[in-house]
Amino acid sequence: MLRSMLENGRRAQRAVAGSDASQRNKILENMSQLLKERQSLLIAANQIDLNNSEDLTPSLRKRLGLDAPQIARLMDGIHMVVRQSDPLGRGGGQKRLANGLTLEAVHVPLGVVGLIFESRPGVAIEATALIVKSGNAVILRGGHEAAESIRVIVECWQDAIGASGFDRNLVQAVLDPDRQYVTDMMHLEGLDLLIPRGGPTLIQQVVQEARVPVIETGVGNCHVYVDDGADIPMAVRIVSNAKVSNPGVCNAAETVLVHRNIAHEFLPALEQELSRHDVVLHADDRSRPYLSVSVDATQEDFAKEYLSLDLAVKVVDNLDQALGHIARFGTKHSEAIVTNNYPHGELFLNAVDAAVVYWNASTRFSDGYEFEMGGEIGISTQKLHARGPMGLEALTTWKWIARGQGQIRT
Amino acid sequence: MLRSMLENGRRAQRAVAGSDASQRNKILENMSQLLKERQSLLIAANQIDLNNSEDLTPSLRKRLGLDAPQIARLMDGIHMVVRQSDPLGRGGGQKRLANGLTLEAVHVPLGVVGLIFESRPGVAIEATALIVKSGNAVILRGGHEAAESIRVIVECWQDAIGASGFDRNLVQAVLDPDRQYVTDMMHLEGLDLLIPRGGPTLIQQVVQEARVPVIETGVGNCHVYVDDGADIPMAVRIVSNAKVSNPGVCNAAETVLVHRNIAHEFLPALEQELSRHDVVLHADDRSRPYLSVSVDATQEDFAKEYLSLDLAVKVVDNLDQALGHIARFGTKHSEAIVTNNYPHGELFLNAVDAAVVYWNASTRFSDGYEFEMGGEIGISTQKLHARGPMGLEALTTWKWIARGQGQIRT
Repeated sequence: MLRSMLENGRRAQRAVAGSDASQRNKILENMSQLLKERQSLLIAANQIDLNNSEDLTPSLRKRLGLDAPQIARLMDGIHMVVRQSDPLGRGGGQKRLANGLTLEAVHVPLGVVGLIFESRPGVAIEATALIVKSGNAVILRGGHEAAESIRVIVECWQDAIGASGFDRNLVQAVLDPDRQYVTDMMHLEGLDLLIPRGGPTLIQQVVQEARVPVIETGVGNCHVYVDDGADIPMAVRIVSNAKVSNPGVCNAAETVLVHRNIAHEFLPALEQELSRHDVVLHADDRSRPYLSVSVDATQEDFAKEYLSLDLAVKVVDNLDQALGHIARFGTKHSEAIVTNNYPHGELFLNAVDAAVVYWNASTRFSDGYEFEMGGEIGISTQKLHARGPMGLEALTTWKWIARGQGQIRT
Repeated sequence: MLRSMLENGRRAQRAVAGSDASQRNKILENMSQLLKERQSLLIAANQIDLNNSEDLTPSLRKRLGLDAPQIARLMDGIHMVVRQSDPLGRGGGQKRLANGLTLEAVHVPLGVVGLIFESRPGVAIEATALIVKSGNAVILRGGHEAAESIRVIVECWQDAIGASGFDRNLVQAVLDPDRQYVTDMMHLEGLDLLIPRGGPTLIQQVVQEARVPVIETGVGNCHVYVDDGADIPMAVRIVSNAKVSNPGVCNAAETVLVHRNIAHEFLPALEQELSRHDVVLHADDRSRPYLSVSVDATQEDFAKEYLSLDLAVKVVDNLDQALGHIARFGTKHSEAIVTNNYPHGELFLNAVDAAVVYWNASTRFSDGYEFEMGGEIGISTQKLHARGPMGLEALTTWKWIARGQGQIRT
């Protein structure tokens, strides 16, 4: 089944690859219109998914749910993608070789993209908008608990595509709950890119098992290092924001590292602030004495992406020890230092190997919208092709076009 | 062993990552000087390799051999890399967000690169020069038949590095012939990039088995399509150049596709030219009548990268059939059309999915030097990160650096 979906997707994609941005935008505009028209249908389908998933945890149910304000936000997101400039076409290096051959790097779509995601049905809207705008086809595979919602969303996409005069197979979904299809997608030779969007287990599985090109996204064990040169109120504000403003996302902080010289001052102030938000502090031996309530941190705490109102705390001797800790436990996502010591700030920015490195700012800015890139397909934590928030460009490649008058190599 | 080589390489790499281009160039200049001083030592080591490999085929022995003119060319290549501009540092997107946070994309080295290659010892010089110039460390694993040559080359590199005040472990090699090390390298978690340089068997093995990031290079089943709008003498010249100027390389043509309307004119002219070079034509049923001497082509011929003086020949009904054949058998490397028909030329350039697409020029130009990129680490046939000839930039990634004054996300 996947083999024929790939071929159908490729056929549909070829026509879109050669289209103007205005034609691709038209698909997105149609989609937004259809979401408006079929909003009650979508909410009803989502309600079926919710009714079928009463055994889910409250946070998973929250992810699965889709209401009118969320649909409105997703429609806004589509319009943001419409307004973004076209990632396809000329713009790469152009040169004329000594022999008269002209060379030009032209941005082209990747082709057919596979997207494996979990329970959030909105992914099928926002990620697909980016994939279609950049001239690609997509095969969606969402969590089975969101099947009814995804079915309606994909019908909207296919109608939006058909109404624009393109082949409806540009957007396809595997709705069969059999997990074998996930494995098959990872082994689908010819698939141009597979993006896993979800928790660390899914992402690790895809990275380990895939035989097709993958972009690894989203696992964020992010740190804030509070240096002895830090402004304490600023440090409290940044750590608190990085932890509590949205604890369930990948750019939230999971560990705070504190220079021993300021631990006695910073940690009580941090505890006072975080206790207002019911954050549980998992403290190492050296930080515990400065905290009135905490649980003991083990090595496992430092390796964990909590995605909850938990924060690991560790006192370090110096910047170097903080860098060592981050190199060991970090996931190359987002890392921050708070300091007014200029050499320490610069050293941290240079030495930390991560997609985004912050000096005196919250890790929560690692996001396509915050970076003013428009929407994002995910946050890449790998080094090849895309790093950090991935916008439209990450969904393209280029080819070299060479025009000659009979040139041969001597 | 590989684990500690990786850690040692990473330690050495960190110092180099923060260095000026002039310091990295100094390593390359030292290397060139040492190659000059130790040329006879290197040639003697290579002679041992040759003596140990008397059972190799003549073409493999040719690849293994290293003589004074070749060493001089490799030294020239190093100096070309020295002259190239620094791929590291600023130059990516820079923006100031509305909240005052400044964002900057800074080009940084990938880290530690693994290079698996076969019998050509010069790879340990030319590829390493690019890897070091771009601030990376390397772990080399060459074919066991080149072990003595590689040992001398790596000693030169380590002395060149040491003399520049850096850690010698920036360049390391696995000289143990046990094939297990190749597998171990493909599974070496934390290795930032693995590049296979060699034949299709090696590359396929790496792509299938690797659990680390890989860039796929070099398998080129390249086609020249001679359209009915072609200038016949130009088409003969281009096909001949693409086949015979260096048949053992990935950008050589392996199949010529001929429009049926001109087959009667083109094929005899091509045969006359290619017979002077002893090219064996593997012809399909429809091309055979136009050739005086040929062997029968099977489906296998069309799928094969001959890398020899063999050429598959096929008559097609039209451009569309040529595009279908290339989509089926091509390896996304380099593809050419010869035509004076403008719409056909443009259609071919747009429709073919390959790293480099040529109109009225030989496929043999797909090369870092010809593209005026300086040396190349290989020709990428994948779509992510790098496509076509890969120069210094392909060996870098970037990180986002964000400088704030206490910004938090609202």
